Amino acid sequence: MANGMTKLPSGVILDKDGKPCRLCTSAASWRALTKQAKTAPPTTTTSTTTLNTNPNTNTKDCPPDVETLGRSTWTFLHSLTASYPVSATPEQQMEMRTFLGIFSRLYPCWVCADDFRTWMAEPSGTNEPRVAGRAEFGDWMCRAHNEVNRKLGKKEFDCRFWEERWRTGWADGRCD
Amino acid sequence: MANGMTKLPSGVILDKDGKPCRLCTSAASWRALTKQAKTAPPTTTTSTTTLNTNPNTNTKDCPPDVETLGRSTWTFLHSLTASYPVSATPEQQMEMRTFLGIFSRLYPCWVCADDFRTWMAEPSGTNEPRVAGRAEFGDWMCRAHNEVNRKLGKKEFDCRFWEERWRTGWADGRCD
Repeated sequence: MANGMTKLPSGVILDKDGKPCRLCTSAASWRALTKQAKTAPPTTTTSTTTLNTNPNTNTKDCPPDVETLGRSTWTFLHSLTASYPVSATPEQQMEMRTFLGIFSRLYPCWVCADDFRTWMAEPSGTNEPRVAGRAEFGDWMCRAHNEVNRKLGKKEFDCRFWEERWRTGWADGRCD
Repeated sequence: MANGMTKLPSGVILDKDGKPCRLCTSAASWRALTKQAKTAPPTTTTSTTTLNTNPNTNTKDCPPDVETLGRSTWTFLHSLTASYPVSATPEQQMEMRTFLGIFSRLYPCWVCADDFRTWMAEPSGTNEPRVAGRAEFGDWMCRAHNEVNRKLGKKEFDCRFWEERWRTGWADGRCD
């Protein structure tokens, strides 16, 4: 940063190497950061830089922010549960546990990944992946998502309906 | 199906158990399928069922179709490459290879997963995951995506620019 000690805009998450983490940060905070980086120090001229104030920076060809990445990844994860066997073999269960473990380490937003690992490792064991079959796996994923919704101050989803939302559509036919 | 031998609408992909695979099928084909299922056989009445002809069935609370699932998953996968270390340790490389192997077996659209596994296993070895570091991993993922684009008759992406698209944004500042 130009002056070395500029306070970062609120909500900018840093990587472990101290650099701003784009995939961990909301589009709004990222815009504030880049605006800050572009703001010239005071000079004797009166010219100002015209900044792109379009709130829709997550256009089709821009890197995703934390929300876009999150929404996309939840679609993938819930679909994994929707396509899971009704009753999984021991091998399928082991494979899914392995997959979730690696996922929880590699998820591109590191603070999100840390939170997810912490949640899964809750000492009572209540948040361990439930991969015996589709019903419990889908319910577990719904609970995992609701934990994030809570943290973000979002509405929680009624997990009794995860299959309608992610596999079958609704009885009223709105998704047909 | 009511008459037992109805021909399925074009583009409807079946699961390995012979049932229509929602996550493998486009929204348009799925709509055609449900319309077909709802169409009553001819009777002496003149009443007809009013069907939902809204083309936008992938509303926020409907199960994804193959395109929505695909778009979401590519966002996740390319972001994985964007956040990958510039130079990965042997352990990180092994972990990513494992992750991709499991992913290629579990991806919810089974025909898509089959295609992906076949592509990766191409005998010359040219499509094996390249996970030594970020540059080659991002390029490999871009090539994998272009293979799918080709199959679907879509435009291919110039992989020299995968980092602009998925990590840094563009030099013209459009994503800032």
